[in-house]
Amino acid sequence: MIKIKEVAQLARVAPSSVSRVLNDHPDVSPEMKERVLRAAEQLGYQPNFLAQSLRTGATRTVGFVVRDISIPMFGGIVKGAEQELESYGYSVLLTNSLQNSALEAKHISVLCQRRVDGLILSLQSEASAETFKALDNVQVPVVLLDRELIGLPADAVLFDHASGVQEAVADLVDLGHRRIGLLVGSSRTRASRDRIRGFMAACEGAGTSANWDSIVELPTATLEVVGQATASLLGQAVTAIVAGDAQIGTALLGAMKERKVQPGRDVSLVICDDLELFRLVDPAVSVVYRDAEQMGAVAARILMKRLSGGVAGPIREILRTNYVARGSTMPPPETSVLPQGRALRAVTGSSGKRS
Amino acid sequence: MIKIKEVAQLARVAPSSVSRVLNDHPDVSPEMKERVLRAAEQLGYQPNFLAQSLRTGATRTVGFVVRDISIPMFGGIVKGAEQELESYGYSVLLTNSLQNSALEAKHISVLCQRRVDGLILSLQSEASAETFKALDNVQVPVVLLDRELIGLPADAVLFDHASGVQEAVADLVDLGHRRIGLLVGSSRTRASRDRIRGFMAACEGAGTSANWDSIVELPTATLEVVGQATASLLGQAVTAIVAGDAQIGTALLGAMKERKVQPGRDVSLVICDDLELFRLVDPAVSVVYRDAEQMGAVAARILMKRLSGGVAGPIREILRTNYVARGSTMPPPETSVLPQGRALRAVTGSSGKRS
Repeated sequence: MIKIKEVAQLARVAPSSVSRVLNDHPDVSPEMKERVLRAAEQLGYQPNFLAQSLRTGATRTVGFVVRDISIPMFGGIVKGAEQELESYGYSVLLTNSLQNSALEAKHISVLCQRRVDGLILSLQSEASAETFKALDNVQVPVVLLDRELIGLPADAVLFDHASGVQEAVADLVDLGHRRIGLLVGSSRTRASRDRIRGFMAACEGAGTSANWDSIVELPTATLEVVGQATASLLGQAVTAIVAGDAQIGTALLGAMKERKVQPGRDVSLVICDDLELFRLVDPAVSVVYRDAEQMGAVAARILMKRLSGGVAGPIREILRTNYVARGSTMPPPETSVLPQGRALRAVTGSSGKRS
Repeated sequence: MIKIKEVAQLARVAPSSVSRVLNDHPDVSPEMKERVLRAAEQLGYQPNFLAQSLRTGATRTVGFVVRDISIPMFGGIVKGAEQELESYGYSVLLTNSLQNSALEAKHISVLCQRRVDGLILSLQSEASAETFKALDNVQVPVVLLDRELIGLPADAVLFDHASGVQEAVADLVDLGHRRIGLLVGSSRTRASRDRIRGFMAACEGAGTSANWDSIVELPTATLEVVGQATASLLGQAVTAIVAGDAQIGTALLGAMKERKVQPGRDVSLVICDDLELFRLVDPAVSVVYRDAEQMGAVAARILMKRLSGGVAGPIREILRTNYVARGSTMPPPETSVLPQGRALRAVTGSSGKRS
């Protein structure tokens, strides 16, 4: 390790002068500054950042807790935040919770011990006791991504997941679908609750009473779990399925392929989130799109605003989601191609056209 | 901020006793320890970690520089490393370089200023002056992922990309292909050099002199760039294409779909890296598989070994890659379905069977 003394020796000044230069003290001549900085660079001197932070308090670093970086959407969210924060001279330290609340709580503590200036949090659930406990000790501003924590008045950026699902289901109803299934993740997160709300609103708007039987809440998005749920929906003779996120949608594509059920022709399909995959399969999949990079950038801007002070009350920014129709949404087939173990139940209020 | 003094007051002990407990001093009675820890927890006291690190030197944190977390493979690599390091009681701080060498160099410095105990580095290129300069100042052990830096005797985990590509091309030759194209990323990284080497070795092994014209080095993997390269290869009447990574492969699938060229039936296709996408398109894509989680876990174990001391010389671990045949590799069609702007050139040493 290079020491201040060595920099002072090379620059032929007193160690205290080196300190003054490195701490940007106003009482330093331009010549002195030039000499010291040149010597520091020549020796590869690295100021003791920990000691510096202890004095100034600020680290110009933001901690970003990501619940699972293997979820493709986080690539976009992190990129949006990183680019925005970089423009303010801030660096980002990420942690990866592997969808594990205990690890998430630990990472929040680790980042705070490192004295980050603020936190951006993508939390696993809205109801983890461990995470709540870790957040209790957080002294820096926090921005939540797509989560609302009861009793924690933090800033938040939220997607309006309902709007896109509502558009999608309205389109399916227009095409003639009357029995539509919804596969969603845990309703302990607001994204799933939001999607259920959009689904119900569209059904009601179409004069079709929503079918609670055909809303399936999944504990995980493995091929096996999604496969079983798909089989159950097909058994109910749904003619269209809405998948609540990219993981569920990917597994659903696998389950349909396994059962030789063709999206669009046999069963219409909409997936929430737009992956490259969904444009490359045949037919391309209709999706509910959300702008991940925008979410990251907005979160970063809120944090910078909060750090610059003078903002009262929590900020909540809500970003729309939008339905994009592609080849996987078509009118329902005349008769179901699937073995119908169960009889088609009467559907109330079925007033729309049917191809 | 809660102070040691407040913990001492609540526990009704001297502040120096609190310090002794929190620093795990041997001269502390179990009752004293119990009392202090209970008071600390009750107040939500957070020891000043920066000050502590200054004293002990160790932070039990590993810095992990990821060149682009939106590349799906890194989800697996980070997971493998994270799980392994967690079992040693280490936390991981990640940074995301957005494929930008300047940002990468800055992140290396930021992590070192934060006094991580070691670094795992997934670098953008093997020839970035900025990155070399940043690494010059690194005082902790470093493990490189799939990169070799000239003049830097660091530990490294490397994939043997050549083995899998060689197997793939040998299979294509067996199926009867004689004109095979290879799309790879920048040959400034060893992965691409390795893949070119495996490609050449397989061609030579088959008695087919390798065709340098049909090896295309791509500056980026955008749909446009990959589309142009694909058009050029199809113009050369290749009957099979090997894509050097998942990004190139995904863009290639898009380019083929756009041109209505069907993988397998019209042109055989092998992609290096196995994404869910490649199993879900029809036909499923043959791939060269590498175990991302294993790479992360091996890197973590090397770092732990290095930190425990007593290991001489750099450690190099090489992980195999393997070819997995699926529906996208078939015998070449009798005649090319594509407009042939150029005449088929004579192929020397074409001794294999042709369907």
